[in-house]
Amino acid sequence: MHILCKQELLMNSINIALKACSTKTTMPILGCILIKAYDNQVTLVGYNLELGIESTIQVEVIEEGSIVLESKIFSEIIRKMPNEIVELSTDGSQMARIICEDSEFVIAGQAGQQFPELTQVERYKSYTLSQHTFKEMIRQTIFSVAQEESRPILTGEMLQIKDGFFRLVSFDGNRISYRQTPLSTEYETQEVVVPGRTLSELSKILSSDETDMINLYFEEKNILFDLGECKVVSRLLEGQFLKYEHVFSSDYATRIEVDCKKFLMRIERAALISREGKNPIKIKIDGDNMIITSKAELGTAREKLGIELEGNELSIGFNPKFLIEALKSIDDDRICIHFISPLAPCVINPTQGDYYKYLIAPVRMSLTHND
Amino acid sequence: MHILCKQELLMNSINIALKACSTKTTMPILGCILIKAYDNQVTLVGYNLELGIESTIQVEVIEEGSIVLESKIFSEIIRKMPNEIVELSTDGSQMARIICEDSEFVIAGQAGQQFPELTQVERYKSYTLSQHTFKEMIRQTIFSVAQEESRPILTGEMLQIKDGFFRLVSFDGNRISYRQTPLSTEYETQEVVVPGRTLSELSKILSSDETDMINLYFEEKNILFDLGECKVVSRLLEGQFLKYEHVFSSDYATRIEVDCKKFLMRIERAALISREGKNPIKIKIDGDNMIITSKAELGTAREKLGIELEGNELSIGFNPKFLIEALKSIDDDRICIHFISPLAPCVINPTQGDYYKYLIAPVRMSLTHND
Repeated sequence: MHILCKQELLMNSINIALKACSTKTTMPILGCILIKAYDNQVTLVGYNLELGIESTIQVEVIEEGSIVLESKIFSEIIRKMPNEIVELSTDGSQMARIICEDSEFVIAGQAGQQFPELTQVERYKSYTLSQHTFKEMIRQTIFSVAQEESRPILTGEMLQIKDGFFRLVSFDGNRISYRQTPLSTEYETQEVVVPGRTLSELSKILSSDETDMINLYFEEKNILFDLGECKVVSRLLEGQFLKYEHVFSSDYATRIEVDCKKFLMRIERAALISREGKNPIKIKIDGDNMIITSKAELGTAREKLGIELEGNELSIGFNPKFLIEALKSIDDDRICIHFISPLAPCVINPTQGDYYKYLIAPVRMSLTHND
Repeated sequence: MHILCKQELLMNSINIALKACSTKTTMPILGCILIKAYDNQVTLVGYNLELGIESTIQVEVIEEGSIVLESKIFSEIIRKMPNEIVELSTDGSQMARIICEDSEFVIAGQAGQQFPELTQVERYKSYTLSQHTFKEMIRQTIFSVAQEESRPILTGEMLQIKDGFFRLVSFDGNRISYRQTPLSTEYETQEVVVPGRTLSELSKILSSDETDMINLYFEEKNILFDLGECKVVSRLLEGQFLKYEHVFSSDYATRIEVDCKKFLMRIERAALISREGKNPIKIKIDGDNMIITSKAELGTAREKLGIELEGNELSIGFNPKFLIEALKSIDDDRICIHFISPLAPCVINPTQGDYYKYLIAPVRMSLTHND
């Protein structure tokens, strides 16, 4: 193999493939990057057996071929090079020579054939949406993916195509984050569960440009995200995800409208006293105001915020972290919150439309908690 | 105590006092901030028994008094407040009430009298220099303060007033960093050793404005840095510091001039192969070029850089970290390096003048290290 490539272009491509390299693994080759040169292009591949990423760039290929290099040292060398032409070549002994201006590295590699084959996903039917929208949808739901492995299915997000909508839903046992966007074409219902790590790495690669599109293809056990010059393959999680439709209710006894940023600031402040979320905060909805209080040995916090109330007054307790993460992900100025009772989850919605819903279970307050 | 103060002003002052608060201590009061209100000003004090910082601001004092508050929760509460007037008041039971707009906190404190008295330093003779210069001098020498406590005196920097110069010198057993600036007045010789932690916290407070001055006062065991609205008191280290004058020699067998940034970039790249500095890098001075090489199991690096040579050719080994830290601290485009032999330290100087000197001991190279 022998290629010539501008440093910046190569570095961008390495950074993409790196996101699928394993840092902790008993198989050292999963911490490597495969470099394949053919037809005046180079494909860099990272693959940890769950998630695989291929990034392809146009370069000058003097001799076709492939090599596998340890991703950490390879990326550090290229990162420290000046933004000039990098020459990468190999000889029969699997040593790679990297030359850029007055700098020359020789590092040991492995034969390209040693690298595990990426799972192939049949391109049977594709779903297309804007990369920017998908990136936003991941940001707005990823935080409530379960961190514990006790129920593996909950460490992923449900990706659902139904009724002309594309939806992402996550559930960690205490809260549900739900986000949807309309599809331009009608498809039959599809549901798969994508590992949270796949979505979080994918979101770092997705463009923020509304006009860049992504195509999704899925099979029973695998999904392919095609971004054009970059392809992401991931295994799917198997099992039964939450039947979330039955959990959201349109009934409510109390409905408030409130300024999202002001509500967030007040919850964040009150949370300072709640011993990093160990003590719940209490929200008392009382006429034109909500009073947010928290209490611990070291002191008390009391915050007031104007609201528009429809329905009953109410006192309810929450883990402040759950409210904070949901409120941070919302871009709207004003939001609407529905409550049923102090023992039932609340649901945060837009004041108009239903493109997101955050359901959060309350914490039962002790009777001694005063406000 | 009862005061009114703009949030931003109070926060700045807390951030200064915080730098002397202890995070790990068996005496919880050393993790607190003392707040003293008197004569329409408030002084915030942090003190860990080695380093003490007092920051004074002009505020509206409704009632004089003092209180001691746990620094972490106090700073977090004020940081999260809007930039409006904060009202801080105490009652007889040592509870502090903090009110800002619709937010109200009550936190437990301790009586001001509980806080340890800061060491008083007699203002006998003052040395004046620009805060900016002092800040730069600390940045350019602090990295070679010894990290190990085995020789406590080396965990500080020597602050020397001699021959019309103000100097900072640090020495960790392998390298000396030396930086001087002329004083406008002639003083008698003075030498004290200031703890590295004091200088590194002080440098965060020092202004980058050339016209802001700092006054230094010292006694046998303590030093006072007076920045005007902020005062820093520190104990001095006791013992005999290195007699550095005898170590710097004006003799050399090899003198080179080289581009500082280009040299740094090449050393940083070669260091990638030296297993995080575990293997030395080798520098071969050879006519108009230096060749920098490094070698480990995973591969080799070879870097070339043009130089101006005076004297003998030479091959010498170094721990790359020592060269990198010295070169990073230098602002000059070109530097001069003196060598005596492969077994003697090199000295990095300006091409003109002597306002800095970095002495670095070499590493003996094995004979099998080829280039």
